[in-house]
This record gives sequence, C-alpha cells and structure tokens, in this order.
Amino acid sequence: MQPFTATPAEAVRSLGELGLIAAIRRWLGTASPPEPFGIGDDCAVLPASRHRQLVTVDPVVYGEHFDDSIPPRAVAAKLLKRNLSDIAAMGGRPRAAVIALALDETVSRRWLEQFYRGLAATARTYAVTIVGGDITRQKGGLAATLTLLGEVNGPRVLTRKGAKTGDWIFVTGTLGGSILGHHHRFTPRLAEGAWLAARREVRSLIDVSDGLAKDLPALAPTNAIPSLCPPAIPISAAARTLAQRDGRTALAHALSDGEDFELLFTVAARADRAALATAWRKKFRTRLTCIGRFTRTLEAGALPLDEFKGYEHLR
Amino acid sequence: MQPFTATPAEAVRSLGELGLIAAIRRWLGTASPPEPFGIGDDCAVLPASRHRQLVTVDPVVYGEHFDDSIPPRAVAAKLLKRNLSDIAAMGGRPRAAVIALALDETVSRRWLEQFYRGLAATARTYAVTIVGGDITRQKGGLAATLTLLGEVNGPRVLTRKGAKTGDWIFVTGTLGGSILGHHHRFTPRLAEGAWLAARREVRSLIDVSDGLAKDLPALAPTNAIPSLCPPAIPISAAARTLAQRDGRTALAHALSDGEDFELLFTVAARADRAALATAWRKKFRTRLTCIGRFTRTLEAGALPLDEFKGYEHLR
Repeated sequence: MQPFTATPAEAVRSLGELGLIAAIRRWLGTASPPEPFGIGDDCAVLPASRHRQLVTVDPVVYGEHFDDSIPPRAVAAKLLKRNLSDIAAMGGRPRAAVIALALDETVSRRWLEQFYRGLAATARTYAVTIVGGDITRQKGGLAATLTLLGEVNGPRVLTRKGAKTGDWIFVTGTLGGSILGHHHRFTPRLAEGAWLAARREVRSLIDVSDGLAKDLPALAPTNAIPSLCPPAIPISAAARTLAQRDGRTALAHALSDGEDFELLFTVAARADRAALATAWRKKFRTRLTCIGRFTRTLEAGALPLDEFKGYEHLR
Repeated sequence: MQPFTATPAEAVRSLGELGLIAAIRRWLGTASPPEPFGIGDDCAVLPASRHRQLVTVDPVVYGEHFDDSIPPRAVAAKLLKRNLSDIAAMGGRPRAAVIALALDETVSRRWLEQFYRGLAATARTYAVTIVGGDITRQKGGLAATLTLLGEVNGPRVLTRKGAKTGDWIFVTGTLGGSILGHHHRFTPRLAEGAWLAARREVRSLIDVSDGLAKDLPALAPTNAIPSLCPPAIPISAAARTLAQRDGRTALAHALSDGEDFELLFTVAARADRAALATAWRKKFRTRLTCIGRFTRTLEAGALPLDEFKGYEHLR
C-alpha cells in the first residue's frame, strides 16, 4: 500500500495530533496497558524486576526497509520482529516497547491504522506491551523506530564474545534470498535463543541480520578464522531462485544477503554435538546445522569467507 | 552548521558502516561503557535494579527541531535534555539511553563528530550512559531518536493524574519565547522533579513542552478547569522580545510557545504553600510561581485558557 495520499481528508493531518494519539490507543487496544504503565504520561512506568535488563533499538524506514509493495501490517510486524531477533540473540525474553514515528502529514490514516493494528497483533503474539511512543512531523519522510526492552531470566546472558579456537559453528534455519519475502515473514528465534543460553556448551550467540559473511566474524576468537564446509551451508529455496535469476551462485546469496534473522552460535570443541542435536530436535522443528569451526588457519576445502560481503548499511 | 556536504571525502559514506561505528565509539568515549553493557552486541545489558523503571522516547528531526543555525553539539544536548525533562516530570532519575540515527550518506563526518561529542558531554553531565544504538540510511533525511531509561528511587511516581478540584497550580522558571535560544539551552529540572515527588502535598506533575495552554489541561481533575491569575504567569524576557517583534502579547507567547521544558504541578488545596516555597528556596534557585488553581467554574478575573493554543505537532 502507498503510505502517502493526495486526498487531504484521508491524510493523518486531518486527525490532528490529539486525534491521532486517541486513534493509536484504539488501534493498539489491549497491546497497550493503561497509563502510567502505557501510553499517556511523560514516561511509561515498568514494574521493578529482579532480572538484568536488555535494550535494543531498530527502525523501519520507507525506501530502505519497506516500500509500497509491503502491506503496512507486515511493516509493523517486521519492525517488532527485527528487535525481537536481537533479544533472541542474547537468550532473553521480551518485555515492553516504545515506538517513535516520524512522518509527513500526507501519510494516510488507513496506512497508519493498518500499521498500528499489525503492531498490536505482533505484540500480542510475542507477549510484548507497547508502553509509549512519540509522533513527530518529518517533511517527506516515513520512519518508525522501536526500542525493545527485555530481560534475562536465566543465569547467563549469551553475548558475541566467548568462542574459543576449535569451537563448532552452528546456524538455525536456511540462509539467503530474504528479499523474496522472508525479510518480513520470518519468525524471531526467541525460544531457541533462551534454550541455547541455558546450554553450557554454547559459548557465544548472534543473530544473522546482515548476512553470514558479515556477521560471523563478530564471533571469531582472537587469532582464529571460520573454516566453513561449503556443502553444509543451509541454502534457502529463495536463494536458489534468486541465483537462477541473477547468475550469482546460491551459496553467494546464502552468505551475503541480509535479513535472515537466524541464530548463529558456537559450541565448545569437546562438547557432544550429537547430544545437542538430539536435545534440539526434541524441542524444536527449526533446522539446525553445524557449518564448520573456528581454526587458526583455513582448513583444506574450507570456504574463503573474505570473498563474500554482507549487507552494507551505508552504501 | 550545515549537516550535509557536497564533498564525497567529507561525507559519512566515505567512512563506511563499520568505520562510522568505530568513530562513534571513539566520540562517545567514557559516556559509553564497554560491551555487553554498552555498544557492540545485539542488545545492551543493564544490571538488575530493585526500582520501577521509566521509559521515554523523543527524536530531533532536521527541519523540525533544528536547522543549520544550531550547532550539532547543541542539537545532541537538546535531544538528550528533551528526554531528561520527561524523566524529571515523573520525579525519576535517568539511567541509560540508546540512540537510533537515520541519515543521508551526504551528512558530513564533522557534523556527526560534533553531534556525538556533544551527546557524550551532556550524558556525562547528567550521569547517563549511552548503551547502544542503530544507524540506518534515510534518503535526504537526518533524524536521531533517543530512548531514555530511568528509575524511580523514592516511594512514589508522580504522574499527570492525582490533582483534585481546589488544588493549587505551580510552575517553575519563566515561560515563552523558547525559539530565541531556550529551546536548546534549557536545563532539565531533574533535581526539582525528584524533590517534588518526595513532597506529599504535591499531587500531579508534567513538564511544559507544548506550551502551558496545551499541557495544563492534562492535569485537570474531572469537572474542573484551571483558573489562572494573569499577572502571576511568569513571562520570560524572550517572550517579551518576541511580542515587541510580532505584535502578539507576551502573555500569549508565554501560554502558547512550545519547548519551555519547565515543570508544572499541583499542590493540595489545604497544603501550607508558604512552607513549600520556603523549603524550595532553601534547595533551589529555580523560580517557583503559584499561577492559579483548579476550580469548578472560571473564577472572576481568571484567564480563559481556551483562547490560547499550544504547539501542534501535525500542523
């Protein structure tokens, strides 16, 4: 849907600021608790918690993360799920979100209604409350920035640091070709992330959002490089479809395309990988693949990852 | 300073995404703690706290909240202080912030450096840590959205609700004419807000960000209206200057101009107002004025507030 309208009566400007805030409360419904725990005061108030808190922020920007071809409900779902994937990548549990909207006054009320209703639906699915936000005019623009708060319930926060040379590298799901639809239809791996944080043999964790080739180096221990086994890389059907269209290899798409939102983690060299895989399959239907390990030098037959590039945000 | 540059070598694009993130870490310096408590992982981690948490979000958008005439350090200070004023308006203490930047690739490195250095300086002044963020391209745009987390240390969160008919209305500082400089030079009333939250006779609190005429009704009890005493309204020198220029009254500027960032609160009808004022003066040099009270009908000589309008965000 085109977010902008040339018809003044259909534009958000016709609602006015207070009218828009009232409409947003209505559209969010039960996804937004009563103030002061939700929208309506200078700050939202969150009850005290005994757990460590997590914070992450990610936007969706018109022309960058979505266009007229993506339904507004899907734009909102993508916005929240991008952030949920970051909580998953720490083994955390999501809690509450605030959303700042910057928009031209010609954005249509219909687009906004669908956007907020989509946000509410996704928030309810993942037990997140929308506790506050802001609306600002931005000439010619449309962007929504969501800050998600979460918490760590278990004894451990799983960070990007912690891998050692020799550690095995695992990835969930399949990779590449996200632009064909996965980029807004994906499922954040929250249950998987929390489960991994409770497994002692798992030593580091990240989500793949800019492509494996760009994100994997963040897990590399000092003086080690990833030796990946090319046939093991789980290539998505979409990556194969894209490869047929553009002449690049499906593997290149799997390594370089952004917005997979899968989990990438390392497992101690001496861990029982078969036991891990068995325990995983008892719990999840999500595909799990060991794709290589961190080594001092590139192993024979391993993939030279430097030849692939991930998504560059300032291109 | 003009944020955009026509010289490719001076533009942020020439840094690349990873180069920019490294530069931001450098510019923020000690204002950003080491990961996982600061920038660098999928989420920032905040230590557990026994207190209720506060969350607020506010952006600064080029063309709306700042222009070429405002130094980038002042833009950053304004961004953080706008949010600090919201924490002050709940009687809270600020804790940590995340910042999402959406920008055209032609934004200059020099502008950004000054912006982040200004953010760091303001963060250190108010004991806030910058724990994370995001950078996204936005064609032709420049906007920064800051989410601020705080906590309530005392037994009470002071909200907008709580005033009763008969309550006295107080305001800090002077009002109006913010556009002449106060809109980025103001001091968020954090100490004052925390002090007010500890005073039992204070029943509700808000910060004046869209003009007194627009913000005061949010404190009104059911079936009551504000009866303001016109000569009591603390009019700023800037409001008087503006009035001389544009022919509107200084009072109209004091009631309608946005971005005062002063505190507005109500005090129980039977409270000892003199004792409150004395205790205030022992603690603060900030001006404090009783401007009227909430009544069932407009008192004789009181100001008909409906004739004034505050700042409209979707105009």
